[in-house]
Amino acid sequence: MTSLSSLQDTTVRPTITTGPIHGSHKAHLDGPDGIRVPVRRVELSNGEHHDVYDTSGPYTETGAQFDVRAGLPRLRAPWISAREPVGGAVTQLAYARAGIVTPEMRFIAIREGVDVELVRSEVARGRAVIPTNRNHPESEPMIIGKRFLVKINANIGNSAVTSSIEEEVDKMVWATRWGADTVMDLSTGKNIAETREWILRNSPVPVGTVPIYQALEKVNGDPAKLSWEIYRDTVVEQCEQGVDYMTVHAGVLLRYVPLTAKRITGIVSRGGSIMAAWCLAHHRESFLYTHFEELCEILRTYDVTFSLGDGLRPGSIADANDEAQLAELRTLGELTATARAKDVQVMIEGPGHVPMDKIAENVRLEEEWCDEAPFYTLGPLATDIAPGYDHITSAIGAATIAQHGTAMLCYVTPKEHLGLPDRDDVKTGVITYKIAAHAADLAKGHPHAQSRDDALSQARFEFRWADQFALSLDPDTARSFHDETLPAEAAKTAHFCSMCGPKFCSMKITQDVRDYAEAHGLTSVEAIEAGMAEKAREFTGRVYLPVTE
Amino acid sequence: MTSLSSLQDTTVRPTITTGPIHGSHKAHLDGPDGIRVPVRRVELSNGEHHDVYDTSGPYTETGAQFDVRAGLPRLRAPWISAREPVGGAVTQLAYARAGIVTPEMRFIAIREGVDVELVRSEVARGRAVIPTNRNHPESEPMIIGKRFLVKINANIGNSAVTSSIEEEVDKMVWATRWGADTVMDLSTGKNIAETREWILRNSPVPVGTVPIYQALEKVNGDPAKLSWEIYRDTVVEQCEQGVDYMTVHAGVLLRYVPLTAKRITGIVSRGGSIMAAWCLAHHRESFLYTHFEELCEILRTYDVTFSLGDGLRPGSIADANDEAQLAELRTLGELTATARAKDVQVMIEGPGHVPMDKIAENVRLEEEWCDEAPFYTLGPLATDIAPGYDHITSAIGAATIAQHGTAMLCYVTPKEHLGLPDRDDVKTGVITYKIAAHAADLAKGHPHAQSRDDALSQARFEFRWADQFALSLDPDTARSFHDETLPAEAAKTAHFCSMCGPKFCSMKITQDVRDYAEAHGLTSVEAIEAGMAEKAREFTGRVYLPVTE
Repeated sequence: MTSLSSLQDTTVRPTITTGPIHGSHKAHLDGPDGIRVPVRRVELSNGEHHDVYDTSGPYTETGAQFDVRAGLPRLRAPWISAREPVGGAVTQLAYARAGIVTPEMRFIAIREGVDVELVRSEVARGRAVIPTNRNHPESEPMIIGKRFLVKINANIGNSAVTSSIEEEVDKMVWATRWGADTVMDLSTGKNIAETREWILRNSPVPVGTVPIYQALEKVNGDPAKLSWEIYRDTVVEQCEQGVDYMTVHAGVLLRYVPLTAKRITGIVSRGGSIMAAWCLAHHRESFLYTHFEELCEILRTYDVTFSLGDGLRPGSIADANDEAQLAELRTLGELTATARAKDVQVMIEGPGHVPMDKIAENVRLEEEWCDEAPFYTLGPLATDIAPGYDHITSAIGAATIAQHGTAMLCYVTPKEHLGLPDRDDVKTGVITYKIAAHAADLAKGHPHAQSRDDALSQARFEFRWADQFALSLDPDTARSFHDETLPAEAAKTAHFCSMCGPKFCSMKITQDVRDYAEAHGLTSVEAIEAGMAEKAREFTGRVYLPVTE
Repeated sequence: MTSLSSLQDTTVRPTITTGPIHGSHKAHLDGPDGIRVPVRRVELSNGEHHDVYDTSGPYTETGAQFDVRAGLPRLRAPWISAREPVGGAVTQLAYARAGIVTPEMRFIAIREGVDVELVRSEVARGRAVIPTNRNHPESEPMIIGKRFLVKINANIGNSAVTSSIEEEVDKMVWATRWGADTVMDLSTGKNIAETREWILRNSPVPVGTVPIYQALEKVNGDPAKLSWEIYRDTVVEQCEQGVDYMTVHAGVLLRYVPLTAKRITGIVSRGGSIMAAWCLAHHRESFLYTHFEELCEILRTYDVTFSLGDGLRPGSIADANDEAQLAELRTLGELTATARAKDVQVMIEGPGHVPMDKIAENVRLEEEWCDEAPFYTLGPLATDIAPGYDHITSAIGAATIAQHGTAMLCYVTPKEHLGLPDRDDVKTGVITYKIAAHAADLAKGHPHAQSRDDALSQARFEFRWADQFALSLDPDTARSFHDETLPAEAAKTAHFCSMCGPKFCSMKITQDVRDYAEAHGLTSVEAIEAGMAEKAREFTGRVYLPVTE
């Protein structure tokens, strides 16, 4: 594992956002073995509190000071050093298969509110993964699998055209503040290794990469000059640094490339196009495919999880679910079996652009062909016609595909197809994807999902404005939107809002209706039909108290 | 019909946005009887053009001048005056049942790109409605039904707390500019009638209202003081003005009210809470229900369409699909039959807040109980936890429910639950709902939906940036997002973008792959396996041309 000390001569001085999210504070749930699982605790005005899953790491602790040059505490270091390999492997999959419950699994069970045996068995079955490179001990364990809360990933990373290391570290902290469960560093410009080092040492969530990007930089951008050796060395370098999962486009086979020629948008995956170019240039099967077993050996050594990339994913509605896409998916299924045989964890990446009627089919085939490896999809975008709003076009697809079983959703920001996301775009993308993930959790009947909706709706109905804000995904925005119309502090306790005004509040009327009905035992059809007549007069006049404007 | 001349003493001077949307201009498709159907025509740089459904009215004509005090031209006036009642009725339903094809139906057939007999038969069947008050001749005919393009509605209207007539007229023009198929004027404050008059005389789309709001103003805000006579006079007044469809909460029956007492959010519909309060106060069945046949007679006289309101819609995930909601829906089915027997057009309003797994059930029951009357839903919001982003939470639900058959979607803006939407919020809500509606059109396989996606994706792949912007739902935003990173005009024709930079463009690599494959006939698996070997060398070196940074 590299140390940031080697980088301390640089001028990198990231500024990061710290402190609790408005209306909440960091708390911890204690478990065995010194496990302390962080939660965002919302204290409600009615004396109750509501704990929210918290991805933000130590940055949201009250009054905490951070030296990003020192990196985060190495939370998992003692767990890692204390355990022996099983069958030569140190992966969570190997331990799970051996019946061993790791501290990571215990941490996750508390975090998800489920039995630890569910965690172990789902990992053993390959239906869930715990991306945890031994060399990224700073990360807080999390799980990706259809039986658990739907997760979201935020892409960050600089390009040749724009952005700096400072910006990317800040984006990582910012993305996890709002709920990103993992981040992927997709840097393609200069300083790829250094950017990644800064991100890893400061990231409380697993970090993913696409190693082929860095490998391509090493050959000056010419795909034909890539080789297994260059790629392998890059992967080892990134494993050493602590990358937790890697996108590998090993399913782009030579014979699939011409299947893309008639597409409207050909190959839109960067990794996919690089490997397609290599295959055509050499007329050989991709080195990712032919050396896949060696790759498994490397990843196993560190417990890096495969994210088998969909290099031939559709980039437009017209290309969805076509022969090229599905041929690659079948190959990913073969590779899944190979990796699992070596105790390496696997997830499968998915599209892209898919109309809503073809989304379920994607999940069905992925589960059938890839033996239910966790599906990790980019959106998908449900239409092509809204550049500038592709966080929304894709949230529609993402919620739908997650409802059908996708375990992790890669966010899309408003800048998709148009430019690199800035800080605001990152937040918008994360919040939008938290919505999609949560909508799916509700639809799947996750036992803990609806309690937050209920708490917030209760607060809304009771005009506990501050509680409503604090329980929301983005308290700052909810509050500021409210204040645009009714800025006065008194309005935060007012029993009306700006939509209807004080004279016209349906919730107030409803409360009167409810009070009356309950006071008179009129909570059933029978009761109201039997007993209302004599009480009607009494009710008239108090159902509503007009307020002088 | 009132004339704006009576209002010309006022100081109302709305400022409105006029002129074409960037990259397009107004064109017309000619039909019989002097019918001219407007389209937004996008001229592409490859010499082709793409026509887009256009709701914006004359405001987007090039160089047109408008006097909002004069109102729009009375497009439909000659059609209306030329025809006789059928069976005493002047409704599109009556004509359709009699086998008469109206000019409105011909206009719609061209607008939707379908056979006019489909329009007539769907209206006759009651599965589609054409909201067209005889006293709103300024409107351009449109249809709402599951066999046609999914429509969207934008709510506007002032409240006691904020906003003015000027703002609301501007919002109407603004909302239709971006694609609102209808607008509802939900004003509750002062000047309700005058605001509505300004909107109607200047609206190119059907206008809906909720008459109970104005009736309540007349009794100083006390629901108990409402009466059939006050309500009836309000409805007649609004019919005379030209309102095209009216929300009537006639399904809130006395015995349903206590079913809401145990809900988390009780009754959240304003109209629903008003009628519930009235029912309890008088211990009588609602006058909307008991006088429903008289109401039908009034609406039939003007061809005003019922929008039977869901006064007991769920206001939270917890309350979705509950007994109160479904009891009311059954009653709306009875009322649908009553209205249709009198040749009055009917659509049915739907929820609200519904988790994704309970959405399809809403459509199924509505179609079964209400004989497939067009369903018109508010969202639904797929989660409660994101105030400030409820355009997104609801777009997820809206796309899903429209995929299942909802004919029109009522938009939700980012200010939902928090405040009244401003101009930016209206645009965001409209664009978001155009996305949801279009995603559903694609999923339903509407014959004309995908051509726009294909045209845009083709432009994207070929780096025709200006075409991509012009074909998008919001060209201004797409262009400005692009320009944030690469502002130079040259970048609009560059064969790369800011995400990857010039050295790393997957689309450029793909184009090379495609060119090569097509040049060598390598467009099948067999061909590539058979013939690639000897050509591999030739390809090496031209797959990618590194650009010096």
